[in-house]
Amino acid sequence: MITKDSITDAHTRIQPYIHKTPVLTCKAIDEIAGCHLFFKCENFQKVGAFKSRGAMNAILTLTKDELQKGVATHSSGNHAQALARAAKVMGVPSYIVMPHTAPAIKKAGVLGYGGEIFECEPTLEARETTLAKVVEQTGATEIHPFDNYRVIEGQATASKELFEEVGRLDHIITPVGGGGLLSGTALSTSFFSPGTMVLAGEPQGADDAYRSMQSGKIEPSQANTIADGLLTHLSEKTFNIIRQHVKEIITVSDEEIVAAMRLIWERMKIIVEPSGAVPLAAIIKRGDDLAGKRIGVIFSGGNVDLAKVGKLFT
Amino acid sequence: MITKDSITDAHTRIQPYIHKTPVLTCKAIDEIAGCHLFFKCENFQKVGAFKSRGAMNAILTLTKDELQKGVATHSSGNHAQALARAAKVMGVPSYIVMPHTAPAIKKAGVLGYGGEIFECEPTLEARETTLAKVVEQTGATEIHPFDNYRVIEGQATASKELFEEVGRLDHIITPVGGGGLLSGTALSTSFFSPGTMVLAGEPQGADDAYRSMQSGKIEPSQANTIADGLLTHLSEKTFNIIRQHVKEIITVSDEEIVAAMRLIWERMKIIVEPSGAVPLAAIIKRGDDLAGKRIGVIFSGGNVDLAKVGKLFT
Repeated sequence: MITKDSITDAHTRIQPYIHKTPVLTCKAIDEIAGCHLFFKCENFQKVGAFKSRGAMNAILTLTKDELQKGVATHSSGNHAQALARAAKVMGVPSYIVMPHTAPAIKKAGVLGYGGEIFECEPTLEARETTLAKVVEQTGATEIHPFDNYRVIEGQATASKELFEEVGRLDHIITPVGGGGLLSGTALSTSFFSPGTMVLAGEPQGADDAYRSMQSGKIEPSQANTIADGLLTHLSEKTFNIIRQHVKEIITVSDEEIVAAMRLIWERMKIIVEPSGAVPLAAIIKRGDDLAGKRIGVIFSGGNVDLAKVGKLFT
Repeated sequence: MITKDSITDAHTRIQPYIHKTPVLTCKAIDEIAGCHLFFKCENFQKVGAFKSRGAMNAILTLTKDELQKGVATHSSGNHAQALARAAKVMGVPSYIVMPHTAPAIKKAGVLGYGGEIFECEPTLEARETTLAKVVEQTGATEIHPFDNYRVIEGQATASKELFEEVGRLDHIITPVGGGGLLSGTALSTSFFSPGTMVLAGEPQGADDAYRSMQSGKIEPSQANTIADGLLTHLSEKTFNIIRQHVKEIITVSDEEIVAAMRLIWERMKIIVEPSGAVPLAAIIKRGDDLAGKRIGVIFSGGNVDLAKVGKLFT
């Protein structure tokens, strides 16, 4: 379903609507980690996260008729804002199902992009039921945050840009939640940089992808980590790609995540959200195994609730 | 003493040793401020602050004999680290006088660049006495953080780069503490962009420069603000330049500084220290007077104590 050409086409398609984000390096962090790190800064992407890539590619591949009726999803995270923005860019409606417990700042973000919010109880069942109803009433197309090949293709363009900019890499690493970024990165690597080994970082408090790799089937997620973008479990589409192309998933504690995030904030002077700091935490944890390697790291996003995250640095 | 050519020469001299920092824009903040802002990101400069420019220029203009004996200063802030780093780059010693109350992180920064620290009581008198002793014993040259034309020339190169990159600006604004950055920017503007009006932002809790402009003489500083880089008062050299070339100093409260800093962190995903957020706070406070203007803003630094600053966002 996803080919080298389809990723290249996705890239061409979304380029007018997304940032080509910078690749930064940091000598101080290289010294601490003992390797050469190339940080692809999707925290500077539109809506502050790589999710804009997948959402844009999904909406741009709808038929004209589908497009007019708009798009829908259930999400309280970066995908919600990315989809609402993509719909706004195209001048069509977006319908976002959110638990009524979602933070006001997340709702404000969606409303700011012209999205229409449908509140529901904070359970997966309530979300899915509400979304089904919204889709039935509006005729909108559901855009799943990661179990969608057009979304995965979009996310694949971040690592494509990274390879184009920095050349040969020994490893590339992303965080893994639902697996959209990781599976897109894995496919992109297999096509554009086949000698590069794909790794992932995952919070110990939401280590379903790690366990899925062990058991060979999709394991359910618990959800007890500061990395609030990585709470979901894998889907059929993402798991099938990940089990085939990803070498290893490295799990890290919340303490390790906060320490890595602090390094990024203090040394690079940029804001990366807890989920985005997971790969660096994994690299530092792995230590000598990666000594001297050239490693691409996707900083997945930069959306933090400062009132909450600011208190972590004590 | 400082001419168009001397600033150009300083720029050529220091270029191999400093970053040409990026100029960033932010649509969301432009909408809030109602004008077009061009942020010169000295938070990404070596040692995390514009101070690297002045320190490098000062050390590069020493005679060979002076250079061998090293440099000295009393500072517990960004100048201390910048001077220690400049000395390290040149392979000569640096002697930094610091109050024994200075935060461990500041001391570690200086030691990390190979500086030798001399602790003293936390009074200006003790600092000056200790520094005089150190200079006498070592033969090092004192490099004052701002009352030094070579330092001022170095700081002037930040705005020179900004003008070269973005062209015509209606206004340019920096924070003001001792006035090294402001006086350098004012001179640079008079030479390289004479149609641009120079403004400064200053904390209400350390508004000595504002009061000096009113009274026509250097007023002493109190020191009660979160903007810990702006506690010192002007010097003869900086005041004489500032009174001649700076149109207005706008004072802002600590609440306004924190609100501006939060905007920068949340919307731009970059870390700017409280002192560096003062100019944006001033622009937002001034509001309609600046509507539609093209304004250059120097983000002076990005060195924050996250354990302290993280708590401000509640």
